[in-house]
Amino acid sequence: MAEYPTGIGTSTTDSISLLGHDLASELLGQISFGELAYWLATKRRPTPGQLRVFEAVLVSLADHGFTPTAIAARLTYYSAPDSLQGAIAAGLLGGGSRFLGVTEDTGQFLHDVVLGLGDTDAWTPAEWDDAARAAITETRASGGKIPGLGHPVHKNGDPRTPVIIGIAEEAGVKGAHLELFEAIGRVHPEILGRTLPLNGAGVAGAALADAGLPVDLLRGFALLARTAGLIGHLAEERENPIGPTVYAEVDRNAVYEP
Amino acid sequence: MAEYPTGIGTSTTDSISLLGHDLASELLGQISFGELAYWLATKRRPTPGQLRVFEAVLVSLADHGFTPTAIAARLTYYSAPDSLQGAIAAGLLGGGSRFLGVTEDTGQFLHDVVLGLGDTDAWTPAEWDDAARAAITETRASGGKIPGLGHPVHKNGDPRTPVIIGIAEEAGVKGAHLELFEAIGRVHPEILGRTLPLNGAGVAGAALADAGLPVDLLRGFALLARTAGLIGHLAEERENPIGPTVYAEVDRNAVYEP
Amino acid sequence: MAEYPTGIGTSTTDSISLLGHDLASELLGQISFGELAYWLATKRRPTPGQLRVFEAVLVSLADHGFTPTAIAARLTYYSAPDSLQGAIAAGLLGGGSRFLGVTEDTGQFLHDVVLGLGDTDAWTPAEWDDAARAAITETRASGGKIPGLGHPVHKNGDPRTPVIIGIAEEAGVKGAHLELFEAIGRVHPEILGRTLPLNGAGVAGAALADAGLPVDLLRGFALLARTAGLIGHLAEERENPIGPTVYAEVDRNAVYEP
Amino acid sequence: MAEYPTGIGTSTTDSISLLGHDLASELLGQISFGELAYWLATKRRPTPGQLRVFEAVLVSLADHGFTPTAIAARLTYYSAPDSLQGAIAAGLLGGGSRFLGVTEDTGQFLHDVVLGLGDTDAWTPAEWDDAARAAITETRASGGKIPGLGHPVHKNGDPRTPVIIGIAEEAGVKGAHLELFEAIGRVHPEILGRTLPLNGAGVAGAALADAGLPVDLLRGFALLARTAGLIGHLAEERENPIGPTVYAEVDRNAVYEP
Repeated sequence: MAEYPTGIGTSTTDSISLLGHDLASELLGQISFGELAYWLATKRRPTPGQLRVFEAVLVSLADHGFTPTAIAARLTYYSAPDSLQGAIAAGLLGGGSRFLGVTEDTGQFLHDVVLGLGDTDAWTPAEWDDAARAAITETRASGGKIPGLGHPVHKNGDPRTPVIIGIAEEAGVKGAHLELFEAIGRVHPEILGRTLPLNGAGVAGAALADAGLPVDLLRGFALLARTAGLIGHLAEERENPIGPTVYAEVDRNAVYEP
Repeated sequence: MAEYPTGIGTSTTDSISLLGHDLASELLGQISFGELAYWLATKRRPTPGQLRVFEAVLVSLADHGFTPTAIAARLTYYSAPDSLQGAIAAGLLGGGSRFLGVTEDTGQFLHDVVLGLGDTDAWTPAEWDDAARAAITETRASGGKIPGLGHPVHKNGDPRTPVIIGIAEEAGVKGAHLELFEAIGRVHPEILGRTLPLNGAGVAGAALADAGLPVDLLRGFALLARTAGLIGHLAEERENPIGPTVYAEVDRNAVYEP
Repeated sequence: MAEYPTGIGTSTTDSISLLGHDLASELLGQISFGELAYWLATKRRPTPGQLRVFEAVLVSLADHGFTPTAIAARLTYYSAPDSLQGAIAAGLLGGGSRFLGVTEDTGQFLHDVVLGLGDTDAWTPAEWDDAARAAITETRASGGKIPGLGHPVHKNGDPRTPVIIGIAEEAGVKGAHLELFEAIGRVHPEILGRTLPLNGAGVAGAALADAGLPVDLLRGFALLARTAGLIGHLAEERENPIGPTVYAEVDRNAVYEP
Repeated sequence: MAEYPTGIGTSTTDSISLLGHDLASELLGQISFGELAYWLATKRRPTPGQLRVFEAVLVSLADHGFTPTAIAARLTYYSAPDSLQGAIAAGLLGGGSRFLGVTEDTGQFLHDVVLGLGDTDAWTPAEWDDAARAAITETRASGGKIPGLGHPVHKNGDPRTPVIIGIAEEAGVKGAHLELFEAIGRVHPEILGRTLPLNGAGVAGAALADAGLPVDLLRGFALLARTAGLIGHLAEERENPIGPTVYAEVDRNAVYEP
């Protein structure tokens, strides 16, 4: 007989259990949605510090204005206003390598390096700088790119980056991933020959990793955050749509090239 | 020249503004993800009471175990593990009329009735009962169904319902939608001839409406909550998959019927 | 023991059966993809005439240039080039009420009327005109719209319409749905007070219904046709992208409206 | 002023042009849907031989019974019957690396090898065998897998494979990709130490490449074919659903593992 294992939840006629707790008496009204999202993804309840960083990172990732994914969601809603779920899904489907991927790529890159560093608990900034130099040099030698560096708009520094690092510090969860990311920020100019900002998507990946979230699921948290942003865009599209204008402009300025 | 209006955010080289506030100095670390989601959807910052109800409702809606949508997301992940966004999107696409729709349907039903009631601020329970009787009778007469009534498992009462109502009461946001929903719970047996529980999806819709969220977007909040649940399911699917078993069982027990 | 009935296909170690035929020896190279699509949807093999109309209608629906759904697919591809399936899915998700829905709406509208007409085999054009007048008048009286009428560009007549009707006539499958649709084209000016073209999406719905396809699945055939169009758009997006320009234009012309 | 280039289509008040031809007078009723799909993807009209292979391959890929993607589409339709496009999109989203990817992976693998072979027009089978040996050996040495080999059910040979090859031969489009694929089929046992069938998804990729389709879009054609299959599954789900049974079985046999 086939069995379907799960540790998420169970229910009986009279009760619903979620993550081993009674939903009604132990969870509702007692944990935030952010806390539940962390817990569901990891099967561990976050510490207050981890939760503080997690909520801050979700807030930082929720919206980025008129991104291609937000525009795609709005156009989908314009075409099929009967299916809100379809418009949100369309917006999430752009959460791939080019846009939302930076968070996951940065977290995984840092994680791979950190795994090879041994015990870094008592490391000085200079030791982190050495590790960062080695990682950058090696990545470049094999033709790779350092994720989390550079931003098309915030060329002098992404305003989210120092704030997220500060929150992690205050919350006591700043760890190896953020240390390494900061060191990359310090040493990359001497290797790459130019100074690039540590971007907000990258610091989000580093901070989520330090906050105990699995690096191979980081894209998922970017998608969760973005779902809130997409609902905002679709709420606005109902009142003050841009979909018809985007369509009209593209159609009007189409140029036939055989 | 085409213009694309938005009130969500703007950014300059040095700053990011979200909902009229500086993201880095005014929002990060200072509001929860739930608060931002509310704010993005309504362009209004929630009161502490509204936020408490909103977070509780999101927690109540995040997971329902092995729903068809969770199974669909897991099967999609099994087929295309390279695209987490695709698996989440597939899970959300089931958020339509039959499953996730109850929250929105209940909120809209109650809202439509409430709009016709005039000033109900000083109403007694008996007055709410009369309004509920009229609404049920009229809906039945036109062949409609009362949304939010009944549950396939929690036949004696959905354990979420009294807790959500209690939180709304404590938070000072219990209003006309929950009053009417409770009254429906009291009077429907005398009209329908049987006693059905007020279900958790329905009370979620009523509570969200009382917490100031737009009734025609309620499905969106159910989808946001469910995104967290889907990430939990996909995290579990990575470790302890059910997708291959579902596939094998369906395939093995397929019966050809020309 | 649970069973999963299907009449689509079965396979053994040595053979694959599809729709009751051996795939390798009876179908491959012997039927067109269009024929298989018809057969899968209906479990009936089309007559040559039905197939001719079906293929022509799919060709007529495959592309409509820079529609909102094509733009959404291209933007999704630009954001997540690693997931072609996500970009196609995003494009299909706009196949709802506003754009692709006309084909299904027209087919269903005509079908509902036709069901009430009795035996129309020997009807004269004048009899069809009477039926059309009654249907338009009744629909208008109940506040409804006649689907399939009007086009934002082809104001003097949609060039697809007479050709599709001609193909159906030649193929011997012109039936009650197209007859009624043509009659609506003739008589609506006297009732509506203005002359609107019978549009290509509408005639597609009428022709598919006459070709024996189920009217409650017509949207599916529009989606199938559009999948081919979306692949064309994405192939072009790889070579000569518009996604970056759409994004840049919307972002550059964003206007903050608090 | 932004411009949006496209070579797919244009329209004026009186005409619609598609791929440089008048849709109404030159295409409708004169080309099959398969021919249009080929043409849209490549901007080249297929030769009769190329079209014959393309249609046969689409037929071979359209359905594979109760695959995870078909089950996911059915579950989505069960949850949200109001959105056929959502159910089809959910089914396509599983078209990733594990299932539908084989067609593209095989086409690309063969293409990469073929590009390095120089002029193979007059090659003998023995020369192809040598090239196949080299490709397999090199791929294995770098830890890679040979795509298109092996099948969980058709262990003695996939019945589609010889038929597709035969059609390509007859149609005069058998070229380097199929030659190399056949050679892999002949020589792999001596290198891998066991005999695996050339599977249907792999031969589809080889045949599409020989038929002139771009190897980096082959997944798209698998998705197009599968769209027809999904419509068949959803048509069947309306009449004789399996979604409720899948849901009930998984739910009933859920085992809580904390």
